[in-house]
Amino acid sequence: MITVHGVPLSPFVRKVQLALRYKGLDFTSIPVMPGDDSDAFSKISPLHKIPVLEHDGFTTPDSSVILRYLDQSFPDKPIYPSDPQSQAKACWLEEYGDTKLVESAAPIFFQRIVRPRFFNEPTDEALVTQKIEVELPPVLAYLNDALPTDGYAVGDHLSIADIGIVSPLMSARHGDYMPDAKTYPKLAAYFERALASDIVQKQLSVELEFMGVN
Amino acid sequence: MITVHGVPLSPFVRKVQLALRYKGLDFTSIPVMPGDDSDAFSKISPLHKIPVLEHDGFTTPDSSVILRYLDQSFPDKPIYPSDPQSQAKACWLEEYGDTKLVESAAPIFFQRIVRPRFFNEPTDEALVTQKIEVELPPVLAYLNDALPTDGYAVGDHLSIADIGIVSPLMSARHGDYMPDAKTYPKLAAYFERALASDIVQKQLSVELEFMGVN
Repeated sequence: MITVHGVPLSPFVRKVQLALRYKGLDFTSIPVMPGDDSDAFSKISPLHKIPVLEHDGFTTPDSSVILRYLDQSFPDKPIYPSDPQSQAKACWLEEYGDTKLVESAAPIFFQRIVRPRFFNEPTDEALVTQKIEVELPPVLAYLNDALPTDGYAVGDHLSIADIGIVSPLMSARHGDYMPDAKTYPKLAAYFERALASDIVQKQLSVELEFMGVN
Repeated sequence: MITVHGVPLSPFVRKVQLALRYKGLDFTSIPVMPGDDSDAFSKISPLHKIPVLEHDGFTTPDSSVILRYLDQSFPDKPIYPSDPQSQAKACWLEEYGDTKLVESAAPIFFQRIVRPRFFNEPTDEALVTQKIEVELPPVLAYLNDALPTDGYAVGDHLSIADIGIVSPLMSARHGDYMPDAKTYPKLAAYFERALASDIVQKQLSVELEFMGVN
């Protein structure tokens, strides 16, 4: 029995849900908000961060730790390349996604969707402009260079690299931002391929329902 | 042929050097400073962070990615517990070390040693007090609770958890801060055991020489 604690719109929770869908594992979801400092949640997430995975009574926080745990507990459809160099490249792209891409992409979603829709607060347009015009371009350019012209980020099937890159891009997309196909042709095509996949389609429909759009 | 790019006093570079010493692997060290934005270093470390590992022409940044790569490339003396739950616990403790412990412990070293000795700047005593009196106590209490009364953090030999916890504590120790044995008995005893080990002794002597103390 698998439970994911955390709202699906968090790029880190989304990573875990994408991996579970890829592996074909059923799970239930408890939509904990980031920063929940209740006693019950603090016990399973000392930094009050989401997601936390619960599996048959065992719990662990941290999306990267969770993904590794899932791959070892459910080795079918592995998400880590077996060759050490390919795995290092994939894990580095996950780390880059978790840090630079989240920092520059997720605030677009937060400002344009979360603040007006959930908190009844205005969008900080200057911050959105700063993200889109200043911070995102070098990050997207780096990813565009790192990606192949076709297929997955590393190797011949979905890996931790794809999960780490696609998840924050989905946050940006919720905020009406898509990488420009002329400036970042490989990245834009890669993201379109990801969006067309069954697992991302399923994840999107769950998220849109959560946002009250569908 | 293994090269570690980065000054050994960085808690993240130290993690890699400790793992290499534990595995008995020879390496050379290039003392790159964090934030180096030269073209040559940017090419192998897009975020200008240290460490970067170079192994027979292959390079990767990020201490966590590097440690996994080393363990897969040199599987003798593994640093990841084989059981998925133990491994998740060890990797979570590494993550906690890399974030909360580094953020609260490393600035003590930076303020007390790096600023006066390397930059000819005064120590920010208020910041040191804030770290020692406010930020560190809950972090040390959490680790004290998480550790066993004897042996290693997880399992019966050194693991990624020990590397992740001991490295930032070594930064604090350079800055003359040690966890109090009365308040954090398990953590203090654990750190004393680590300090007495051959690999930490060797690492310390290299670092003190680098600091110009020996």
